[in-house]
Amino acid sequence: MIPIMDINVSKKFIQLLILKFTLTEIILSGNVLIWPTDGSHWLNIKIIIEELVQRNHNVTVLASSTTLFIKSNPASTVNFEVIPVAFKNSNIDELIEHMIALWLEHRPTPLTLWTFYRELGKLLDTFFRINLQICDGVLNNPKLMAKLHKGSFDVLVADPVTICGDLVAMKLGIPFVYTLRFSPASTVERHCGKIPAPVSYVPAALSELTDQMTFGERVKNTISYPLQDYIFQSYWGEWNSYYSKVLGRPTTLCETMGKAEIWLIRTYWDFEFPRPYLPNFEFVGGLHCKPAKPLPKVLWRYKGKKPDTLGANTRLYDWIPQNDLLGHPKAKAFITHGGTNGIYEAIYHGVPMVGVPMFADQPDNIAHMKAKGAAVEVNINTMTSADLLNALRTVINEPSYKENAMRLSRIHHDQPVKPLDRAVFWIEFVMRHKGAKHLRPAAHDLTWVQYHSLDVIGFLLACVAATMFLVTKCCLFSCQKFGKISKKEKRE
Amino acid sequence: MIPIMDINVSKKFIQLLILKFTLTEIILSGNVLIWPTDGSHWLNIKIIIEELVQRNHNVTVLASSTTLFIKSNPASTVNFEVIPVAFKNSNIDELIEHMIALWLEHRPTPLTLWTFYRELGKLLDTFFRINLQICDGVLNNPKLMAKLHKGSFDVLVADPVTICGDLVAMKLGIPFVYTLRFSPASTVERHCGKIPAPVSYVPAALSELTDQMTFGERVKNTISYPLQDYIFQSYWGEWNSYYSKVLGRPTTLCETMGKAEIWLIRTYWDFEFPRPYLPNFEFVGGLHCKPAKPLPKVLWRYKGKKPDTLGANTRLYDWIPQNDLLGHPKAKAFITHGGTNGIYEAIYHGVPMVGVPMFADQPDNIAHMKAKGAAVEVNINTMTSADLLNALRTVINEPSYKENAMRLSRIHHDQPVKPLDRAVFWIEFVMRHKGAKHLRPAAHDLTWVQYHSLDVIGFLLACVAATMFLVTKCCLFSCQKFGKISKKEKRE
Repeated sequence: MIPIMDINVSKKFIQLLILKFTLTEIILSGNVLIWPTDGSHWLNIKIIIEELVQRNHNVTVLASSTTLFIKSNPASTVNFEVIPVAFKNSNIDELIEHMIALWLEHRPTPLTLWTFYRELGKLLDTFFRINLQICDGVLNNPKLMAKLHKGSFDVLVADPVTICGDLVAMKLGIPFVYTLRFSPASTVERHCGKIPAPVSYVPAALSELTDQMTFGERVKNTISYPLQDYIFQSYWGEWNSYYSKVLGRPTTLCETMGKAEIWLIRTYWDFEFPRPYLPNFEFVGGLHCKPAKPLPKVLWRYKGKKPDTLGANTRLYDWIPQNDLLGHPKAKAFITHGGTNGIYEAIYHGVPMVGVPMFADQPDNIAHMKAKGAAVEVNINTMTSADLLNALRTVINEPSYKENAMRLSRIHHDQPVKPLDRAVFWIEFVMRHKGAKHLRPAAHDLTWVQYHSLDVIGFLLACVAATMFLVTKCCLFSCQKFGKISKKEKRE
Repeated sequence: MIPIMDINVSKKFIQLLILKFTLTEIILSGNVLIWPTDGSHWLNIKIIIEELVQRNHNVTVLASSTTLFIKSNPASTVNFEVIPVAFKNSNIDELIEHMIALWLEHRPTPLTLWTFYRELGKLLDTFFRINLQICDGVLNNPKLMAKLHKGSFDVLVADPVTICGDLVAMKLGIPFVYTLRFSPASTVERHCGKIPAPVSYVPAALSELTDQMTFGERVKNTISYPLQDYIFQSYWGEWNSYYSKVLGRPTTLCETMGKAEIWLIRTYWDFEFPRPYLPNFEFVGGLHCKPAKPLPKVLWRYKGKKPDTLGANTRLYDWIPQNDLLGHPKAKAFITHGGTNGIYEAIYHGVPMVGVPMFADQPDNIAHMKAKGAAVEVNINTMTSADLLNALRTVINEPSYKENAMRLSRIHHDQPVKPLDRAVFWIEFVMRHKGAKHLRPAAHDLTWVQYHSLDVIGFLLACVAATMFLVTKCCLFSCQKFGKISKKEKRE
């Protein structure tokens, strides 16, 4: 329902709005290829897909034959192209279980940093093998590639956590856009996307640090960056040869990923600590959030055996409409594992959180919410029921948590353009202009030495050294000559 | 007139637009205080003022008793508060003439860099004395300050090229927003605003360099930054004591300027080379541009004596409606001194340029347009009529210039929100939320040593040195012991 407004105001208002959009909202119908990542990543990109369909685009999803969440909806017009793979659901489940176990056993503290990254490196090998099947399933599949070529796509939208989307776009000769929370340890954004990350106030990914660090924390942060780079860049080695083979010329994973036209990051400044970024980075966190619908009376499902120890006031549900529940006026707090999607639903509705993070970005996400005063964390390894109860009481009874959650909510809602509209705007921009090269920093054209100005610094130091040498030589020469003369004079 | 649309489409479209804006377009009427800079700067901020008035805000301009362009318009509701000053128009004219002469005689090349900045430093002294009169005219004027206090302003919008706006805001206890092309040599943005500027691809202000630099140019760029900082930071010294005196506690100009909630920069990525920036920097270049109105038949004015040497096909006018003229379909090229306002009108209408830059940001601006292939430069010191004619022929006859100007125009027009709307959105945001602290990077809380992690690097180097020392000692000790034993064994 459109709210009732004064006729004159509303007319002028609408005229203004239309004027604002006449130049940018050119409706076009294009062909979009999606390279998704499974799991919660899919839940986020699905919203972008729905909006693209709403705006008359033809959307095709490239999905493995084995998926967890990625499913075609018979009622939708979205086309699915299946990538044949040999791995099974059990392989993915196993990988996720190992990931969780890694975090539970080696959660990165200053003392476990090295073992954590060493173990993570091992997991990356498994991930590599699964991912490689997906890549080969497309790139070594002439029939599928021919079909994709025929699709005359205008843009490929890729989640870079599943590698090869960029490579498919390159082979099809089309521009590509990334959508991500962050790449493992943000190595891709920093090294391939060239986003600057000053170690003094930008906490390393997975470090659980904030932008306010003590000296000790800054030491940890400064060590975390090169350690992460070492782990992930050694993992890239295998990809570099794969990418070179596919493109038929020597290249690297990073060089190819750096060609992304736009980086749609799944956070915003309600969640993120303010940090430097680049014009081709767009922060669209919470794009999946929607106003809550009223909760239906009979809706929740019950599955499995109810534990005997369960209290009388606790109900078990297999699935609940989380967003609608968080938007209910009686929702006082949200106990969450700390996934980005859930946290954004809580921010959107201004609900304080009790975080019980498990793995990946979850501990970081809860660290962000804690720093912003909207969450209390409970450690899953050591928590007792009393800990959980205390945390819950704290966020419900201490008004600052609700106030901070509401403050984040106000920041989230008060943007010039909503996150989903911004995301779709830039995807369409790339379709209209066949790229967004005007946003690409020249840093991409520099070598590592040039980027860090090491050659210039070396040259200037050499100049200083040469000048000092010459000046010293001249002085010595003058002294010697003067000495000789005075000796001569003395002798005379 | 609203364009005629299919009824269903238009209804859905309007609903969508209204949905988009319900949360952000909360109409409020607030009190805005403006701290302008005279000359072309005023032409830009005037557009923001008009839009603020249009949106029901009460706007008050703080202007000196002596001004060039700043004039109250009797038809407008904008209130003017006059700052009594002793300097005359002739003093400002003289300053500008000196500035132009400085550039004509010492335009900064690698060889004239030092003399240029030395001479510029002298001019800054004159500027300081004029500016100080404006500051004193407000801050040492209890009657005016009391009146401003009574105005209960929500925000102060300042052009920081005229110093003290921030100080007035601090004394009134209100947040402030900056609007600027750049501060002299961008020293304020970099040191007080904490915007990163990697020397390897972000050209120093006033350097006329682009983002694609040769080794020699990178050397020049690397030298330009500290040289500029040295000149401007010595100029700040006088301000630091003034600011400390006014605020009654030890502070610096930079610390105070760093408190700006939002930095509205008068460029965009159609003009600027892509570079890192911060969430509280908003690039709103071209906010003053409008669609061209048809040119009236009798409108242009003639003034002064026509030179005898003037060709029959050249007309002299004292004033022309530049924007409407540039928007005329027959406008083939624009000969310009290279001010940001004029360049943006050319970008807006997609007209290629012949640049004859004189001073300040003008040589830089033309360097940008040249690098983007939309302009040819003619040197004002050495040019002949043949040079100008050739340049004009080049931009008119070589299609790449028109194509590039049109490309920049398309980039300019294809933004999610227009520059003026974004500028006003963020001013209103600061009014609604009493600031925009969620966009402020933690870099502001760090000392210079901490920001550059010099303490952490020192500590880590000390650790490495200590480890190496201990390992060496242990080795030596073991060797000695082993040596003694074997000697003993030998003897036995």
